[in-house]
Amino acid sequence: MNSVLQKPLFRQNMIFDLYELTMAAGYFCNNYNDEATFEVFVREMPENRNYLVAAGLQQVAEYLLDLKFDSDELTYLKQLKVFQNVPAGFWEYLSNFRFNGDMWAIPEGEIVFPGEPLIRITAPIIEAQLVETFVLTMINYQTMIASKAARVVYAAQLNGKKRDVLEFGSRRAHGPEAGLLAARASYIAGCTGTSNVLAGMRFNIPVYGTAAHSWTLAFSNELEAFQNYYKTFPESTILLIDTYSIEQGVRNAIKTGPMIRGVRIDSGDLLDESKKVRQILDDAGMDHVNIVASGDLNEYKIARLVQNGAPIDSFGVGTQMVTSADAPSLGGIYKLVEQKIKGKIRYRAKFSPKKITYPGKKQVFRFLGNDDNYISDTIGLESEEIKKRHKKLLVPVIEKGEVVYDFPEISQIRENFFKNFERLDTRYKAIDRKEIYPVHYSDAIQKLLNDLQTSETKVETV
Amino acid sequence: MNSVLQKPLFRQNMIFDLYELTMAAGYFCNNYNDEATFEVFVREMPENRNYLVAAGLQQVAEYLLDLKFDSDELTYLKQLKVFQNVPAGFWEYLSNFRFNGDMWAIPEGEIVFPGEPLIRITAPIIEAQLVETFVLTMINYQTMIASKAARVVYAAQLNGKKRDVLEFGSRRAHGPEAGLLAARASYIAGCTGTSNVLAGMRFNIPVYGTAAHSWTLAFSNELEAFQNYYKTFPESTILLIDTYSIEQGVRNAIKTGPMIRGVRIDSGDLLDESKKVRQILDDAGMDHVNIVASGDLNEYKIARLVQNGAPIDSFGVGTQMVTSADAPSLGGIYKLVEQKIKGKIRYRAKFSPKKITYPGKKQVFRFLGNDDNYISDTIGLESEEIKKRHKKLLVPVIEKGEVVYDFPEISQIRENFFKNFERLDTRYKAIDRKEIYPVHYSDAIQKLLNDLQTSETKVETV
Repeated sequence: MNSVLQKPLFRQNMIFDLYELTMAAGYFCNNYNDEATFEVFVREMPENRNYLVAAGLQQVAEYLLDLKFDSDELTYLKQLKVFQNVPAGFWEYLSNFRFNGDMWAIPEGEIVFPGEPLIRITAPIIEAQLVETFVLTMINYQTMIASKAARVVYAAQLNGKKRDVLEFGSRRAHGPEAGLLAARASYIAGCTGTSNVLAGMRFNIPVYGTAAHSWTLAFSNELEAFQNYYKTFPESTILLIDTYSIEQGVRNAIKTGPMIRGVRIDSGDLLDESKKVRQILDDAGMDHVNIVASGDLNEYKIARLVQNGAPIDSFGVGTQMVTSADAPSLGGIYKLVEQKIKGKIRYRAKFSPKKITYPGKKQVFRFLGNDDNYISDTIGLESEEIKKRHKKLLVPVIEKGEVVYDFPEISQIRENFFKNFERLDTRYKAIDRKEIYPVHYSDAIQKLLNDLQTSETKVETV
Repeated sequence: MNSVLQKPLFRQNMIFDLYELTMAAGYFCNNYNDEATFEVFVREMPENRNYLVAAGLQQVAEYLLDLKFDSDELTYLKQLKVFQNVPAGFWEYLSNFRFNGDMWAIPEGEIVFPGEPLIRITAPIIEAQLVETFVLTMINYQTMIASKAARVVYAAQLNGKKRDVLEFGSRRAHGPEAGLLAARASYIAGCTGTSNVLAGMRFNIPVYGTAAHSWTLAFSNELEAFQNYYKTFPESTILLIDTYSIEQGVRNAIKTGPMIRGVRIDSGDLLDESKKVRQILDDAGMDHVNIVASGDLNEYKIARLVQNGAPIDSFGVGTQMVTSADAPSLGGIYKLVEQKIKGKIRYRAKFSPKKITYPGKKQVFRFLGNDDNYISDTIGLESEEIKKRHKKLLVPVIEKGEVVYDFPEISQIRENFFKNFERLDTRYKAIDRKEIYPVHYSDAIQKLLNDLQTSETKVETV
């Protein structure tokens, strides 16, 4: 196994929607397990988003490689009423289950748009169908967070100065694992680090922290609290100065010692307060002391602060980033696009105008300008030859159940994100207006859809 | 250990924000580890909410009982730059770490309001501080979901008829664990079951499912697909009838066989479509066949469907419930309220008008009417004697690191929720208007706050 891959965080084998198992049993009982290809894609951009940042692939690969059933799991399943008529052969099949199929995917840190397959799985239909729920939840969440974090990080640099965004959201994430995954996805999309220690350990992400109000409250007075902290962490001390009064707090911070690294403001009007605090620090000759701001921040608030010249060096961002509060779900779906039945290819699509899906194993051809800048995308068939200068976004990751992809270290994924993001025209990075990057379907795929619609509407009402 | 408690889903020991560990080291280095009491509460009701449903306590207890550091974890921590000056004694302390404190809590399934402590932890300050992030993320998420699910389930019964709400949201939850926890919290608050198989196995929640569009697409035509499913699950077949045309779909469902249990509609105008489908089923003598509706549902849409007489028997609810889409985070906080320093009690509070916190170990006194109906609450000190007929909401759960609470089975928690919810006046159950249940602070607690403010403002600017 590639050294970057790990054992999943927990036994995730049973993260199924029941219907995947009933369909699996159904396919099994019908002796129907021909090859099928499913693709994960987002139908429409969530509100306020002009681009998405792919994330979650590594955890999907770890899941696929680890997927099997133990005897407790089989015992649980067998006793469910719905499975009472399922023959013993199905449990035998599950007890030997491994994912032996193929996965192609768009690498983490790439910029993606609606319709583009983030993940493409080709496997006997039982295998391909079983993994749906896990693949979706992992890709949907990490991609949503990376996409949100990219906006937050972008807002923090709006006037050209480099400012750190630290992910501080675990306590408001949707459970402990969500906090961990949010730390990973937001680091990929440019955050400088996280407060989440497990994310630091598991994913090799830099960890950051300051202190809580409770630290200040726990001692007799603020100065004593600050001094007690400084004693232990002389070079890493970032003091939270708003427990009582910010002005008093910064004066106590200055008294604490010359080597403090920063002060944090977590309340009040951050623009006014940061200016006052900067002035007091500078007047005391403490211009090396950074100002960290936090408190229900998001890209909109950060953009306003930055554009109004708030002298803030780092933003601690939590709740709004790790829940993607203005668009708290990503609607990635998992759709059957192609089958191979007794060696013969059968394309699959849905034709209803609102829920159209395009048939065939797809590739995304991204047309590049002279500086490798992104111009437009064509979603075509994997088999198509495209002449114009492009890069193909989907790459093979797993073939016949074996890893064929060199998984990058997370720091490399982050670097790749920066490069990719650089190539996206600035206009699409706007956080407050819709700008639609051009994505087309190839003629070949359009023709395939039309042919399919013509032939299928003869037998079925659409 | 109480038989309902389990090992945590994964090693959750390192779900810390870094500052909890730096503060721990700071307290350690200052020889400061006196008893402290922290309380978890929500400052303000999230938008659109009139009540909250407590959930997540069991997982918090499992975490506290399991919390320790292994050598890999200590090795990781020791090499962090921030800890370079921390003495070896701290690592020795952590290697022997156990939670030896007390936890009081409001039982899961109880109705709660802002200001009321859901969890109260009393322990040496290092222990109490370390557990902050995990306690918050678990209580915040499960309580948020239980509170949302209670609204959805309520909406589904608005015209008096019992209708099932099934939780189908794992694929859009914030990662695999969030889906699992959402299944638990929504079952507590009245959902009939979940599609999440791991939740079924781990938490003993009934599991439900139908089939996906891909099942229908995988076979030559819809009728063949339906018949192939029915063959395997003659008595559990719920057919998804909207892959091509709903009208055609229900006719194919009728042809499939007399014993099918239901049909599912996942698109279109659910009011119109459900009426048409009901009519076609009834005309065919299939009045035993249930109609399941799904597709981005929430309490508002369900209320409209029910109030307009949609003949829907069950609702499959996903994305909007498991992300609590209209209020996707719950702002529970963890605040220091009391210390015992060298045997002497010291109350702690924050006085800033917007972020006030009340001092002292609290109890919630809920005043009951003749039918045990809920009249109003007083948040008082644990030690207060209250004469009026009431129940005390906080109960001891862990004392000196040992469980002293009889954890109920999840089915019992759900029954308790139904009883508690019954006692809440109907007006607070409105899903679309603000109704404020009366919650007061006791005179004793108000006096304590005033005294504290008077004495502390002498030494510190507020």
